[in-house]
Amino acid sequence: MQQLITHIARFSSISPEKLDSIGDFFEARAFKKKELLLEEGQHCPDKFFIVKGCVHLFYLRQNGVEQTIDFALENWWASDFMAFQDGGTAQFSIRAIEATEVLAISAGQQRKMLSALPELNEYFHAVFQRAYAASQMRIRKTYEMSKEDLYQDFSRKYPAFLQRVPQYLMASFLGFTPEYLSEIRKKFLS
Amino acid sequence: MQQLITHIARFSSISPEKLDSIGDFFEARAFKKKELLLEEGQHCPDKFFIVKGCVHLFYLRQNGVEQTIDFALENWWASDFMAFQDGGTAQFSIRAIEATEVLAISAGQQRKMLSALPELNEYFHAVFQRAYAASQMRIRKTYEMSKEDLYQDFSRKYPAFLQRVPQYLMASFLGFTPEYLSEIRKKFLS
Repeated sequence: MQQLITHIARFSSISPEKLDSIGDFFEARAFKKKELLLEEGQHCPDKFFIVKGCVHLFYLRQNGVEQTIDFALENWWASDFMAFQDGGTAQFSIRAIEATEVLAISAGQQRKMLSALPELNEYFHAVFQRAYAASQMRIRKTYEMSKEDLYQDFSRKYPAFLQRVPQYLMASFLGFTPEYLSEIRKKFLS
Repeated sequence: MQQLITHIARFSSISPEKLDSIGDFFEARAFKKKELLLEEGQHCPDKFFIVKGCVHLFYLRQNGVEQTIDFALENWWASDFMAFQDGGTAQFSIRAIEATEVLAISAGQQRKMLSALPELNEYFHAVFQRAYAASQMRIRKTYEMSKEDLYQDFSRKYPAFLQRVPQYLMASFLGFTPEYLSEIRKKFLS
């Protein structure tokens, strides 16, 4: 819990002693590499705070191929937030890329937690405004940059992250074949 | 203000009488058709709640062409939220597509408002979680659908909105030439 409490303190003014009890609302879970945290079509998913590890978000194309649409790592929140908020079924899956530890909270438990500690809304306001802002920037970049430039931008900004993600997932995320990504990587590294 | 208060009541449990004073933190502004609400490169922008009207978000490509990346209409919040939150310069512009009325709030005024009424964080938490969730769905769709399908999806879901947006902006948003969008439209309508 300490890691989440530190994260909350970073984005809100809530006093640390108030956070002593929030562990009651979360469930600590561990996933092995390649294990699913959430499955497309599943009902009302949880929301995950990633304590350690790395996950990818993907959906199944009609041809059965998995399409990676995003990644999340330590100190990020991952879920299908539409399904989480509305209680619908998940539109994509989440899978551990490496051994991953999370704090999971259901929509019901979150309601209880926010009713007991409404000050936490300040934290979630900041977190989701940031996430939405980052998403605006991502959308701008998909218009602005070629896929090759997107890869180089990624490499420059998140070199450590790139070491952790298998190349075939990065290729899927960027819409490349793995072979083409390998070519670009060579060109970029040389 | 009544429209914003209604919107706040829809997404939070804050008691209406507490909202009587929030008008003090906002500035009502009116923009003519084609007038800019926010300009790329400008410092620390405001956040706008759209009371009436419709805007588009765009940036200038290196060749000088405007690239539309999003739209916003009544009851939506529009801003460069990264610049709003961090006090940086805006990475895109916002322009009125039709005569538009907004409630504007600066980052400083928002801090004062949330310090006086921390319960409003519940509202912004819900609004930004929704916005981020919608953005996740948009990103999924850009992987899943061809641009033609995206247009048809848009037409089915937001027919009234499509009537309000000039075709050249919709073409820019979808990455079409205006001529090509016109062809697709004919095909779709026939």
